[in-house]
Amino acid sequence: MRYYEDIEPGTVTHSPRTYKVTREEVIDFASKYDPQPFHLDDDAAKNTFFGRLSASGWHTSAMMMRLMVETMQHGEPQAGLGSPGVEDLKWIKPVYPGDELRLEMEVLSKRRMKSRPDMGLTRSNNRVYNQDGDLVLSMIGYGLIRVKDPDAPIEN
Amino acid sequence: MRYYEDIEPGTVTHSPRTYKVTREEVIDFASKYDPQPFHLDDDAAKNTFFGRLSASGWHTSAMMMRLMVETMQHGEPQAGLGSPGVEDLKWIKPVYPGDELRLEMEVLSKRRMKSRPDMGLTRSNNRVYNQDGDLVLSMIGYGLIRVKDPDAPIEN
Repeated sequence: MRYYEDIEPGTVTHSPRTYKVTREEVIDFASKYDPQPFHLDDDAAKNTFFGRLSASGWHTSAMMMRLMVETMQHGEPQAGLGSPGVEDLKWIKPVYPGDELRLEMEVLSKRRMKSRPDMGLTRSNNRVYNQDGDLVLSMIGYGLIRVKDPDAPIEN
Repeated sequence: MRYYEDIEPGTVTHSPRTYKVTREEVIDFASKYDPQPFHLDDDAAKNTFFGRLSASGWHTSAMMMRLMVETMQHGEPQAGLGSPGVEDLKWIKPVYPGDELRLEMEVLSKRRMKSRPDMGLTRSNNRVYNQDGDLVLSMIGYGLIRVKDPDAPIEN
């Protein structure tokens, strides 16, 4: 298990696979969670700057999360405890059916939680690219992670 | 149709209904997009600060989006054109199966796009509450919206 102590700021990790976006999944997600016409129907999308059917930004975020979990569980799994939130979630380019997404995670910094000596907080820059190398999504994410030795002094 | 010109900063709008969170949907979403043990299984969740099975933060965000779309389409529908992103997305309290979520949207400001005179950008504070009135999610969202009269001078 990889704990707080094992996280090295500056490390860049890549998702172990790509995520293939299908038309069925785009429409299924949008029908449930983002039923705006341009995420459901080609004709409605034609007259917007998307040009054709594209994934909801929340769907792209969810696909990124899937890649994040796989990245964190790849090899030695990370002792993740959830997340309090994200900053600057940007949907930079549309994501279309047929796209293949990959994730790059860069650890920016980490600190122990003074209120919870058994937990640490990491700050990462997550970037999602499509098959053409275009950046389609970026965000700054926070992650909680278990500390291996909670009795060690907090040196933030 | 409600256009850019019809948006009044300071307006607070409430979702026309609540969203009932089910155990099936929590597990279904997490299986697809956030397969961390504490979003899939009660026993795994027991030893985390969630205490029991809780929804992925991305699932809560997706349910918020559903309420947003219904809020924007309620009565006179809004001429929305998508969103470039959000700031400060905070998952403040866990969301559990059985919870009922409601949304409050407050328009903070708006401006015309200099590069696209036919579009405006709104900045809103979105807040999601559970049935006990606890704030579970908040974020600052940006929304693109069609301008009714693109030839009107830009006065930002």
